[in-house]
Amino acid sequence: MDILNELLNIRSVSGDETAMTEFLHHHIVKRMDSWKVTPKLYFGPQYHDCLILKFGNPRTAVFAHIDTIGFMSRYENQLIPIGGPEIIEGAVLVGEDRLGPIRCKLFTRDEQIFHDFARPIERGTPLSFEQNIEIDGEFIQAAYLDNRLGIYNALKLCETLEDGWVVFSTYEEHGGGSMPFLLKFIMEEHPIKQALISDITWVTDGVLHGEGVAISIRDKFIPRRAFLNKIIQLAEKSEVPYQLEVEANGGSDGREVQFSPYAIDWCFIGAPEDNVHTPYERVAISDLESMIEMYRFLMANL
Amino acid sequence: MDILNELLNIRSVSGDETAMTEFLHHHIVKRMDSWKVTPKLYFGPQYHDCLILKFGNPRTAVFAHIDTIGFMSRYENQLIPIGGPEIIEGAVLVGEDRLGPIRCKLFTRDEQIFHDFARPIERGTPLSFEQNIEIDGEFIQAAYLDNRLGIYNALKLCETLEDGWVVFSTYEEHGGGSMPFLLKFIMEEHPIKQALISDITWVTDGVLHGEGVAISIRDKFIPRRAFLNKIIQLAEKSEVPYQLEVEANGGSDGREVQFSPYAIDWCFIGAPEDNVHTPYERVAISDLESMIEMYRFLMANL
Amino acid sequence: MDILNELLNIRSVSGDETAMTEFLHHHIVKRMDSWKVTPKLYFGPQYHDCLILKFGNPRTAVFAHIDTIGFMSRYENQLIPIGGPEIIEGAVLVGEDRLGPIRCKLFTRDEQIFHDFARPIERGTPLSFEQNIEIDGEFIQAAYLDNRLGIYNALKLCETLEDGWVVFSTYEEHGGGSMPFLLKFIMEEHPIKQALISDITWVTDGVLHGEGVAISIRDKFIPRRAFLNKIIQLAEKSEVPYQLEVEANGGSDGREVQFSPYAIDWCFIGAPEDNVHTPYERVAISDLESMIEMYRFLMANL
Repeated sequence: MDILNELLNIRSVSGDETAMTEFLHHHIVKRMDSWKVTPKLYFGPQYHDCLILKFGNPRTAVFAHIDTIGFMSRYENQLIPIGGPEIIEGAVLVGEDRLGPIRCKLFTRDEQIFHDFARPIERGTPLSFEQNIEIDGEFIQAAYLDNRLGIYNALKLCETLEDGWVVFSTYEEHGGGSMPFLLKFIMEEHPIKQALISDITWVTDGVLHGEGVAISIRDKFIPRRAFLNKIIQLAEKSEVPYQLEVEANGGSDGREVQFSPYAIDWCFIGAPEDNVHTPYERVAISDLESMIEMYRFLMANL
Repeated sequence: MDILNELLNIRSVSGDETAMTEFLHHHIVKRMDSWKVTPKLYFGPQYHDCLILKFGNPRTAVFAHIDTIGFMSRYENQLIPIGGPEIIEGAVLVGEDRLGPIRCKLFTRDEQIFHDFARPIERGTPLSFEQNIEIDGEFIQAAYLDNRLGIYNALKLCETLEDGWVVFSTYEEHGGGSMPFLLKFIMEEHPIKQALISDITWVTDGVLHGEGVAISIRDKFIPRRAFLNKIIQLAEKSEVPYQLEVEANGGSDGREVQFSPYAIDWCFIGAPEDNVHTPYERVAISDLESMIEMYRFLMANL
Repeated sequence: MDILNELLNIRSVSGDETAMTEFLHHHIVKRMDSWKVTPKLYFGPQYHDCLILKFGNPRTAVFAHIDTIGFMSRYENQLIPIGGPEIIEGAVLVGEDRLGPIRCKLFTRDEQIFHDFARPIERGTPLSFEQNIEIDGEFIQAAYLDNRLGIYNALKLCETLEDGWVVFSTYEEHGGGSMPFLLKFIMEEHPIKQALISDITWVTDGVLHGEGVAISIRDKFIPRRAFLNKIIQLAEKSEVPYQLEVEANGGSDGREVQFSPYAIDWCFIGAPEDNVHTPYERVAISDLESMIEMYRFLMANL
């Protein structure tokens, strides 16, 4: 899990994902010749901070977002959220502006959020939770498991994938916006009819740690029943532990597949976490393992 | 109105519209040779659960959504809404999971919604109001007049239509998502500049039963004035009873025409109902008749 | 500033922008031969009420919306907002329906908005604040500075622009909807990678009158950091007064660039106003001048 450790230590708040893209590019170029199939790699300014891999003859695309929630400095030591971070009194935030590295604490007053850094922070500087990784035999706990684990899953999938798109998207935590051009690109390059969203979901009263990867029947949006039935049948056949999620809220890159001008079925499949969008998100390692196995099985059989 | 009766008895909650699509396909194939113009029919997995008819040389497209509001089973006998159904204590819901048919009652507790079915319902099972149709000389009352009447209107239009697209869309009640690919398809196949939304609207303090079909000047969204003027002039000329609607809220497939990457004018035209999204939606038969006549006139003259 | 005076006196509430488009078309055709580069002009029904100018070989597009906020007559003397106008007791509204010109006052009762016109106003008639322009040495005050000044800036830019798209969009105040087809058009005609949003922003606790044009690091949406860095570096080099804006709310045509199926970077750059969406919006003339100079510099150097 060395690579996971590295992924967790890179900052890439929505809108400022360049460092993560460059890390992924470097890692993939170094590794891809050892993979079962060497993918075609799409990377560079025309893809903004996204990264696209094409393996063989894709029937299905996997999307993993590389951005995280965070904060941005405003005026007079104010902070405003990027995405939906938990507002935790005293949480340690880190970042960097032109004057140097930043490490400060968050505090709130009159329902506004502030930092306590000793000097003003340049306007518009992104900050994110300080990382603190704890792994034991059963759980992994860290900031940004959402969606570092989704990236990790996608990279593990790359090792053995024969046919498929693997797409690293940006901006997911803050309303999206890269999916439309990513979808246009892959649909014009080599169209597919199916998409899986490699992302992390929530532990709720029906989705529990250790019960397997969650296959989401719905969040705020509803994938097409016909496709869900196909996924669930394959999941049964796979013998990989899984649990069915039915939520009224939440969204993912799947939303943008749904509203795209392409008839692409989609499904969110990912391990559940608790302490969502805090510095101590927590996922059961067995659920991450199920996620990896499930993606391997589905991408071969869908 | 035999066909309307059949339409009203098919369940097709958003995301699970396959039964309706298959019914429509079967019906259309059986009837279309008796229509004035035999349309070209687009149907199958590449259109998901949508269905598209092309008559002659289209200048205008008519959109009728085939999905309905409903509920989905969650965990521990909980239900969550699909679209915006009225939450009515004791309302009878029907559906089916792998264990068999379901008929149960809705109840609420602590602002959560539950069913009272004697056994657990499989996670993610769609349920909808039990149908109960009442027709007298003046009114039709049933669940899902929205948008079974819009479908009915589209099918009546098919009988005499010479030039036009007739499109059966999905997911309208739950945020949409099929319109973008439907619009892309028709704009690449045979582009048009005008769209009419065949759907059912609300009785309000300005839109009344029996006053004719409603031509909507706006709901949450605002069609282009230049097109509305053209529609209203034709409506005047048609001598079909109509009323003008001006609302601040609500939406339709027109929203997705507005936000599409095509310069297509759109207008919502449909009979008004009261008891919206309940099991006893109610529409004046004369308004439905005006709707049918208005579509016939507009599609010939736009 | 004669042309600004004319712009301020044309009514073009969202959805009803025809008068403004025709004015701009007339003005541009009359002037464009005196400009440094004569643009190619795209105008007509296939562009709805939008207008597009292509200068030389565009690398960047400038978008200025031509619509304004306003009101629409409903039933029984009710009004509903178009966009987000301030609801000001006694504000004078003007418009016209088939019975003639309208001038009336707005009043509220039980949280509903009404007009006091002596006769009923036709359903669906757009109304807007009566114009009242005050210019002194330091400030300009009027209704609709948002976005008449953005249009004015775009027209000033046209005089010397060598390479670039200048696009006049509609519907921005009411959710948008013309940007998707405008973007498709320009990306198919002559693609670009950069977009500037010529619009007016807010005076806040960090963005003040007289401090220069605001370069927006974010509103509700977040442009890509890599592009902001480039803009800010050029802004520094330009020596034009500017200030950096960081807001949590608000949106612009930039939103639709972000969510378009094209990898186009965008940034909102505009003078700040106070009394937003009232009849007495106020902008410092020096900030407008900075806006004009900044656009000239950026369009030449981006």
